Amino acid sequence: MEGLHLTADLSGCEQRAPWMLEPAALRRLCLEAVETSRLTAVAELFHGFAAAPDGSPGGVTGVVLLAESHLAVHTWPESGVVTLDAFVCNHSADNSERAEVLVTALLSAMAPLAVTRQGWRRRAAGVQDGTRTNPDESGRMVNCSGE
Amino acid sequence: MEGLHLTADLSGCEQRAPWMLEPAALRRLCLEAVETSRLTAVAELFHGFAAAPDGSPGGVTGVVLLAESHLAVHTWPESGVVTLDAFVCNHSADNSERAEVLVTALLSAMAPLAVTRQGWRRRAAGVQDGTRTNPDESGRMVNCSGE
Repeated sequence: MEGLHLTADLSGCEQRAPWMLEPAALRRLCLEAVETSRLTAVAELFHGFAAAPDGSPGGVTGVVLLAESHLAVHTWPESGVVTLDAFVCNHSADNSERAEVLVTALLSAMAPLAVTRQGWRRRAAGVQDGTRTNPDESGRMVNCSGE
Repeated sequence: MEGLHLTADLSGCEQRAPWMLEPAALRRLCLEAVETSRLTAVAELFHGFAAAPDGSPGGVTGVVLLAESHLAVHTWPESGVVTLDAFVCNHSADNSERAEVLVTALLSAMAPLAVTRQGWRRRAAGVQDGTRTNPDESGRMVNCSGE
């Protein structure tokens, strides 16, 4: 198994955006982005957190399970922060470009003032009689756009 | 928001283990590991894939949403591979040690012949009047044990 794991940490998002506060709105946004990316959603789960004791609104955490792996999103409305991660395996096809499209679609919709993006190749070591066959090919960082 | 994202790519796992093939068994294993780590599960979703046309069994993909962020697991029984990722934010406390305990508990239960582990610090850039305030503190790779 080899794959690509992309993360994006967003700051300066609209703190009162529906997708920042409401599980149904974030779900809609994520499923639209998955459709845009031509990845395959198989199930999803979105959870809204209660407001803090000081009255600041709770965020939303959610995931879309993909045939190709997953998209996970967490929002912090009190600080205008969102974290995204998209992991795609390249089991039957190279889904790297689709993962980039997925993250880019969400960044476009969430319009942060700043974003930090990272990406890594992931690869499970080959195993033959208990011996790794490709130890050097695991976990290479890939070129990934910054801001 | 700052946090720690750990990944582990496992090879040489027991291809017929219940948690490799059955959503309910993987769910149980993941919730036990979350409990061991003293992280807080708020919801979970596990999906089993259909067998391939050649008759090889379908894997399972699942996630546990945590108050601290998420655990995501994908299994490939046909190749004895499992991918794990645990992301914890350190919003109200440093959950890094708990994330390590969570991944270690799953590795112990899944007993792979080989594993590749990676870990990254994640941090959303501070934003002040549209300007990042901590651009250098984002996305630092952290020391993470290999095999």
